[in-house]
Amino acid sequence: MEGADYLAAERKKTEFDVEEMKIVWAGSRHAFEVSDRISKLVANDPAFRKDERTMLPRKELFKNTLRKATYAWKRINELRLSEEEASKLRFYVDEPSFTDLHWGMFVPAIKGQGTDEQQRKWLPLAYKMQIIGCYAQTELGHGSNVQGLETTATFDPQTDEFVIHSPTLTSSKWWPGGLGKVSTHGLVYARLITDGQEHGIHGFIVQLRCLEDHKPLPGITIGDIGMKFGNGAYNTMDNGVLRFDHVRIPRDQMLMRVSRVTREGKVVESDVPRQLVYGTMVFVRQTIVQDASCALSRAVCIATRYSAVRRQFGSQNGGPETQVIDYKTQQSRLFPLLASAYAFRFVGEWLNWLYTDVMRRLQANEFSTLPEVHACTAGLKSLTTSVTADGIEECRKLCGGHGYLCTSGLPELFAVYVPACTYEGDNIVLQLQVARILMKTVSQLSSGKPPVGTMAYLGRIEPLMQYQCNVQKAKDWLNPNVVLEAFEARAARMSVSCAQKLSQFSYPEEGFAELSADLVEASVAHCQLIVVSKFIEKLQQDIPGKRVKQLLEVLCGIYSLALLHKHQGDFLATSCVTPKQASLANDQLRELYTQVRPNAIALVDAFNYTDHFLGSILGRYDGNVYPKLYEAAWKDPLNESVVPDGYHQYIRPLLKQQLRAAKL
Amino acid sequence: MEGADYLAAERKKTEFDVEEMKIVWAGSRHAFEVSDRISKLVANDPAFRKDERTMLPRKELFKNTLRKATYAWKRINELRLSEEEASKLRFYVDEPSFTDLHWGMFVPAIKGQGTDEQQRKWLPLAYKMQIIGCYAQTELGHGSNVQGLETTATFDPQTDEFVIHSPTLTSSKWWPGGLGKVSTHGLVYARLITDGQEHGIHGFIVQLRCLEDHKPLPGITIGDIGMKFGNGAYNTMDNGVLRFDHVRIPRDQMLMRVSRVTREGKVVESDVPRQLVYGTMVFVRQTIVQDASCALSRAVCIATRYSAVRRQFGSQNGGPETQVIDYKTQQSRLFPLLASAYAFRFVGEWLNWLYTDVMRRLQANEFSTLPEVHACTAGLKSLTTSVTADGIEECRKLCGGHGYLCTSGLPELFAVYVPACTYEGDNIVLQLQVARILMKTVSQLSSGKPPVGTMAYLGRIEPLMQYQCNVQKAKDWLNPNVVLEAFEARAARMSVSCAQKLSQFSYPEEGFAELSADLVEASVAHCQLIVVSKFIEKLQQDIPGKRVKQLLEVLCGIYSLALLHKHQGDFLATSCVTPKQASLANDQLRELYTQVRPNAIALVDAFNYTDHFLGSILGRYDGNVYPKLYEAAWKDPLNESVVPDGYHQYIRPLLKQQLRAAKL
Repeated sequence: MEGADYLAAERKKTEFDVEEMKIVWAGSRHAFEVSDRISKLVANDPAFRKDERTMLPRKELFKNTLRKATYAWKRINELRLSEEEASKLRFYVDEPSFTDLHWGMFVPAIKGQGTDEQQRKWLPLAYKMQIIGCYAQTELGHGSNVQGLETTATFDPQTDEFVIHSPTLTSSKWWPGGLGKVSTHGLVYARLITDGQEHGIHGFIVQLRCLEDHKPLPGITIGDIGMKFGNGAYNTMDNGVLRFDHVRIPRDQMLMRVSRVTREGKVVESDVPRQLVYGTMVFVRQTIVQDASCALSRAVCIATRYSAVRRQFGSQNGGPETQVIDYKTQQSRLFPLLASAYAFRFVGEWLNWLYTDVMRRLQANEFSTLPEVHACTAGLKSLTTSVTADGIEECRKLCGGHGYLCTSGLPELFAVYVPACTYEGDNIVLQLQVARILMKTVSQLSSGKPPVGTMAYLGRIEPLMQYQCNVQKAKDWLNPNVVLEAFEARAARMSVSCAQKLSQFSYPEEGFAELSADLVEASVAHCQLIVVSKFIEKLQQDIPGKRVKQLLEVLCGIYSLALLHKHQGDFLATSCVTPKQASLANDQLRELYTQVRPNAIALVDAFNYTDHFLGSILGRYDGNVYPKLYEAAWKDPLNESVVPDGYHQYIRPLLKQQLRAAKL
Repeated sequence: MEGADYLAAERKKTEFDVEEMKIVWAGSRHAFEVSDRISKLVANDPAFRKDERTMLPRKELFKNTLRKATYAWKRINELRLSEEEASKLRFYVDEPSFTDLHWGMFVPAIKGQGTDEQQRKWLPLAYKMQIIGCYAQTELGHGSNVQGLETTATFDPQTDEFVIHSPTLTSSKWWPGGLGKVSTHGLVYARLITDGQEHGIHGFIVQLRCLEDHKPLPGITIGDIGMKFGNGAYNTMDNGVLRFDHVRIPRDQMLMRVSRVTREGKVVESDVPRQLVYGTMVFVRQTIVQDASCALSRAVCIATRYSAVRRQFGSQNGGPETQVIDYKTQQSRLFPLLASAYAFRFVGEWLNWLYTDVMRRLQANEFSTLPEVHACTAGLKSLTTSVTADGIEECRKLCGGHGYLCTSGLPELFAVYVPACTYEGDNIVLQLQVARILMKTVSQLSSGKPPVGTMAYLGRIEPLMQYQCNVQKAKDWLNPNVVLEAFEARAARMSVSCAQKLSQFSYPEEGFAELSADLVEASVAHCQLIVVSKFIEKLQQDIPGKRVKQLLEVLCGIYSLALLHKHQGDFLATSCVTPKQASLANDQLRELYTQVRPNAIALVDAFNYTDHFLGSILGRYDGNVYPKLYEAAWKDPLNESVVPDGYHQYIRPLLKQQLRAAKL
């Protein structure tokens, strides 16, 4: 930090132990230490600068990312970083690149779907990056519906090969990151055909480019799909298009852990349970939820710090204006997002535990909890990414006009984040999957099989249908059990109400289609309950540090009561609370905002983000916003000359009324 | 249109007269004719191409905009276009540029605030664009609060001049469009000081650049403030920073229609009513609401057409998958936005009438309705721009992954639109202003002075407090009076409830601050009522054309019932409707979606947008989406070479394990 700390007065107001809160946020002292060390390593290395990113044209931007990714890999090797540290380093470099897909999709897919032999062949190459892989699943005409993919892999028994082919334009692979310009290999998902018969979608390792000159191999057409949302954002990534014209690969390049094709062209299922894919899925979604808390907390950190710097209106007798963070309208938009960042952090932590638990069960051939696990991971992915995308944009608006500048960091953060609402399952499609499992659970309640895990509350359906909230004064809402019961009753009643409506349809699928918007609402209510309950569970743990736990209780209250207020229609429609009780919750909420206010800066300091990672002048740790905004402006390419390029051709003829002859 | 119409089957389903609907949308046959002719003129002129926009680096992008703006001006003169036509042409060029501020702010401000003499001097220069002006109000440290501006204009009686000065860094003018690189003159707002006394904020015409070489005049520092949200978007505009170091201008360059400074340095008020500024304000906000309906309808047009092209899931026996527009989840997100676009169009039309009405009243020195007019224009600006910004992003998400591509047009539309939530009054600050007037109106109800205009319903406060909704079956919600009463009762009760809570505070301002979040909600309820009521009023007019009126009734139903569902918490908390009635409204809503479905494509065709204006491959009139997406991808600069720039420096050394010596 250079110079004075303009937020020092704010930091003096802090009532809790920030250093302990940093540990809580990181998850453990070890996690904090790694994160702190690696983030500073990246921040202090000028090779990782990113402040010029939004001004670079596409080709330069992309080339610069190639440089950074390669340099990062070099440093990882030089410093002999562990896997954990290497992954943190890539994270703090904070720029989408082909390595994300190589490490995040290509390698795990081979691990999960490849036979031992395939793993022995391909993984060492991938681990050393002697090959670079991408994950080529989605097609121009096919996204969420994997079963609709059109690319074919036809077995040719004469040569013992698969022929990979793109039969139509819409079967072109479209979107895979790293594909457009970099990957040497792709994990290509295609419709398996042997002996004229279709056998569903399978994964195939296909070499795409020559390892000597990087040119696409014969029969392969590859390109970049073009500019995406935002200035830098995902334009650092070569999302690609790929077409196959009868490309042949050896039979052993189909990933065969679960099913294999024999030399004769027979499809044989292995005894490895297909449910293993759930493990990968829980892992991936757990990461997405962690990323949501990270992206949201970045935005909240920026908006909170700037709200303490920015002053507007309320000047008395020529004194300074009021800090905008002191306005209740600002607090009522900002603090629930701050609370959500913490809430998502803790539910992500729990999902991380769930992953371990699921893997243990899978290895014990115990599959009964899988539907519930699927529902909660799908639902939480959907919930947290939607809230985060909207939350980042809300934080941008909370920064007023200056939030619209790229130097605020928020436009980039938004543009780079929003795809999370669509990839790994469109958020609405996912909620419908959750709803389907909820409806099944409700319909089986009378069967005597008690619901498990995050659906266990539905086992208490009778008391929940009878439940009456007994809140009488605002403070009653501070009792976590009171909050939890209200959320359980609301979620249960919404599910039951949907189930009842569904039962009136002769064809269940018709009912499901007709009521899908209601089903999504019921599913969201269920997912919000999960987040609330995991936050409350977290607070039942021992949490050291002066007033750390108290502050988290305040945030938990804000998270749940702000949700209750936002969705009071649900709570009232299901008669879980009365209008009076809803109004008391709102009163309590305002009181909680007052308790957060003096601690707001410290609560975002606890994220321990470097100024490099935040990438925002508005969110600078030292609050030195205005001089730095002013300084940064002059770096824009347009300011290279005082009189702009185009003056003599356009502006001058316009002003001098000499347009008739002008060449425009 | 080239080739086949892939949406022809959709267009055959249409049940109403699209050509008549186009007239309704445009506002009149004349407006339609002008709009249709000018939009085609722009679309057919290759000089106005914009498909390369998102790929250009800043300097080229900006230079290209200079070219287009100058060329547009040349065409306006060559074709001798009327003011109406010229303004339409600039609109359809669809690229923010310095001309927006010149025509939209600089010229109107001189007209509104300049004396007759000043108008005679400056307007002819501005009309011919012999000078180019910008509107220099906001400063680095000061946005919404105009009274907080720091720039000073000190009268020097010795030379009969004002000295314009930026005393601090935060007083730097910051944001004015057209300032950074183009404007020759600025309308500079500054704190008037004469004889050591402050006299509030006034406007001054200051020449900024030399008319011969375009260099900033002595004492003036100007630059561009740098990159903003989005690829092209507002980066075509030179939003600027400006500092004054004791710059002298003649006394007669202060705009003196309302107050003037005499030769002796005395400030004298004229007899022109200060309230005249309201006229300009109503005019500007009326334009913003019209723009909201335009931006939202563009997004809805793209999402609707693509939703009919895109198929996903639901394939039976190998047949085609289901069009995503047939999913109720898609309909429940898309159709309320379609209805909102129409609703905002009509409320904008009404605001246009209101402007005429206000001007008439002002000229008759009739100021009593001004607070109400201020409330409804401020509130509608806030409501429509917020819904539109969120709605564009929702439309983008409704297009799935492909909505994230710049070629979808939606990222640009979003990025270029969102500033509307902040400029001309931050949306939350505006709702608080509305709330203030609402509270005053409620507190004066017993005084016998009946509220007027959009607040007239508050005059029926007693029946509205007693009101009980008598809906018994879903169809009852089709009665516009039933809907209107429910919205009136909800808005009235929310206002009264706030007023009651306010009265419990000893200091009203303290209560206003504490309850501001609730006050914003009450204000939003009031504004939604205005939109609903103006939609209903529109339907009381004669509307010709087969089933045109019926379709509008369906849209009006969707607009109001979707709002009722979204805000059912308000309706239930104020006991305006019962849970059962809210549920019936929701049932009716689904039925209305079914009625819109076959007409959806025709309802967006009625906006009569050219493919050029839409700027979206997903929204193409002919629905030929996939081949065109594929074709467009190859135009990205990254595809200029098969092997990317950076391969030899970075990718190859990485793959070949030769990083140790690599220069990175």
